[in-house]
Amino acid sequence: MRIATVETAQGPELAVATADGSAVLMSKLWPGGPQDMLAAMQVEDEITRRLAANGNAGAVRAEELRFLPPIPRPGKIVCLALNNSANSTRILKGPSHPAMFNKPSSSLLGHGRPIRLRKDYGRVHPEPELVVVIGKGGADIAAADAYDHVFGYTIMNDLTSPTMRGDDTFHYRAIHPSKDDPQQIEYLDTWVSYPGRYKGTDGFGPIGPWIATRADIPDPHALTVTCTHRGRVVTEDTTNNLTYKVPDVIAYVSYYMTLEQGDIISMGTALKAAGGSGQAVQTVDLTTLGGPIDVTISGIGTLSNPVEHR
Amino acid sequence: MRIATVETAQGPELAVATADGSAVLMSKLWPGGPQDMLAAMQVEDEITRRLAANGNAGAVRAEELRFLPPIPRPGKIVCLALNNSANSTRILKGPSHPAMFNKPSSSLLGHGRPIRLRKDYGRVHPEPELVVVIGKGGADIAAADAYDHVFGYTIMNDLTSPTMRGDDTFHYRAIHPSKDDPQQIEYLDTWVSYPGRYKGTDGFGPIGPWIATRADIPDPHALTVTCTHRGRVVTEDTTNNLTYKVPDVIAYVSYYMTLEQGDIISMGTALKAAGGSGQAVQTVDLTTLGGPIDVTISGIGTLSNPVEHR
Repeated sequence: MRIATVETAQGPELAVATADGSAVLMSKLWPGGPQDMLAAMQVEDEITRRLAANGNAGAVRAEELRFLPPIPRPGKIVCLALNNSANSTRILKGPSHPAMFNKPSSSLLGHGRPIRLRKDYGRVHPEPELVVVIGKGGADIAAADAYDHVFGYTIMNDLTSPTMRGDDTFHYRAIHPSKDDPQQIEYLDTWVSYPGRYKGTDGFGPIGPWIATRADIPDPHALTVTCTHRGRVVTEDTTNNLTYKVPDVIAYVSYYMTLEQGDIISMGTALKAAGGSGQAVQTVDLTTLGGPIDVTISGIGTLSNPVEHR
Repeated sequence: MRIATVETAQGPELAVATADGSAVLMSKLWPGGPQDMLAAMQVEDEITRRLAANGNAGAVRAEELRFLPPIPRPGKIVCLALNNSANSTRILKGPSHPAMFNKPSSSLLGHGRPIRLRKDYGRVHPEPELVVVIGKGGADIAAADAYDHVFGYTIMNDLTSPTMRGDDTFHYRAIHPSKDDPQQIEYLDTWVSYPGRYKGTDGFGPIGPWIATRADIPDPHALTVTCTHRGRVVTEDTTNNLTYKVPDVIAYVSYYMTLEQGDIISMGTALKAAGGSGQAVQTVDLTTLGGPIDVTISGIGTLSNPVEHR
C-alpha cells in the first residue's frame, strides 16, 4: 500500500494510491477511518482490505492532490551522513559506524511545494535519499528485529548548503582534561561543524509524496534512486550502495536514541553520478539554477519540487 | 510566574510555584484550566490572577513533585554552539554569527530523573545553559520584536560527549564545483562533524524544572548561572557573557527556521570557571564520576539530576 497525507478544504487527510496510480481519500474509502498517519499504522490491514474491495471507486488523479509531508511533525528526523560506499575513497579519517544529525520538522516540505531559497543561502544542492518510517518505537532494537519496527519507506531530498557548512565550521582549541592530571585542562587543535542552518533551514527537507508500506518493499536495498534536475538525470544509484543497511542502522540509532512511532530515518545520499560523466549533486546549485528538482525511488514514487526565490 | 509540567497518577499535569516556593497543581488552582504548557501560554494572565487569589491553598512541597520536561515534546530544540565571550580566544576561525544544531525531543529529561549513561559513551560532561521558550511563532522576526515571541525561560544541561564528537568527525575530501568549470568537480580537504550522538543521545537534555515567564525575568542577560557537581561549584558565570543575546538570536534563528509555539532555543554554555582555578566543565566526566549534577540560574531555579549506569 502507498499512503500519503494531503491538504483538503477540511484540513489534512490521508490518501491511498489505487492500483492504476490514482488516489482515493480516506474519507471516501473508509468514512470514520484513521485521521492521520500514526492512526493509520494501527489499521494497515483493514485499509488494505478496503482498498482491494473499493478498486478505483471515487478515485482522483494523484496530480490533483496537494501533498503534505507524509508525517507532518515527526518526533525526530535522524539523517545519516556519508553513508554511501562511493564515499569511501573520499574519507581520509572517519568513524566505522553510522554518523548522524537531526533535522527539525519545520524544515519539511511536501511534494510539489516550492523550495523557497534566499540568495544569501549561498549554494544549495540536492541529496536524494531513502527514508525509513518507524511504525513501532523502541530502544536497543536488535538488527534481527529491526524490520518489525518499520512501517514503510518514503523519499527525502536532503537539501544541503555547502556555503553555510563552510561558514559554520570552527577551527578552535577544544578544552580536554589533561592527560597527566584530569583535574587540569589542555587544549587540542580541533575542527567542528554545526548542521543547524546548512541542513535544517526551512524547505531543506522535501519529503514524500507516498509512504510505501513494508509489504510493498520486500528489500529496501534493491531500489533504484534517480535524481533529475530540470528533466536531466543528475545521479542514478541503487540503495544497495548504502554502506550501513536498514537493520544495522535501526539497531545503531536505537542504541543511542529511543525511537518513537512516526520518527523518520533518512539513510544518506545515493550519489553515484550518471554514466560516469563526473556530474555530481554538488554541481547542481538550486539557488542559481532553480528547479524543478526530482527524486525517484523505484516502488515508492517521485518527489518533485519547484524552486522559488524568497 | 513559574510553571512546570509534572507527572501525576492521572497523567501529565501543570504545576505553578507559589510565593513561598511550594507548588500548586493546576487542577487545584483552576479546575478545568489548561491541560498543558501550550494551552497555558494562552491564559497566562488568568493563571497569575488565580495564583494571587489562591495564595498557598492546596500547595505541596516542590520536592514531592515528579517533574517532566516543561514542554515534553517541543517541535524543535535549537542549540547554540560556542556562544560565550570566554570562548573567543579559543576560536582560531569561526563564523561571525550564531552557529546552531538541533537536539531531538527524545533526549529531554525532567528535573530529578536519572541521566542513564553507558560506559561506552566515553566522556560525558555538563554544559549549563539558559533556554528561551517560544510563546508565539514566526519567521523573519525582527530583533526589536523578539521579546514579544518569548513565553519564558528555563534551564538546560546540554550534556555532551567529546568522545563521540571525536569519533563522529570526518576528515574527508568534499566535492565542490570546479572554480574553472562549475559542471566539473574538484576536491577540497575538509573536516566535518555530526552532533547526532554526542548531543542527541537519550538523557543528554536534562531540562527544567520551571519555566519562569517573561514577567519574572525583565533582563535574561542579568542572570547568574552556576554548575555544581556533587555539591562542589564547577563553574559560575553570568548570561551577560553570552556573545549573541536573546533578541539577536531569535532574529537570526527565525531568518532560517520558522519558529513555532513551544520551540526552545538553548543559548549556549555559561562556562567561566569558578575562581579562576582552571576547573572547567570538560573535566567533569559524569560517566566515570557519577552525579548529581546541578545547574542553577537566578530567578528560574535549580535543575538537578543523578547519574546511573545503563
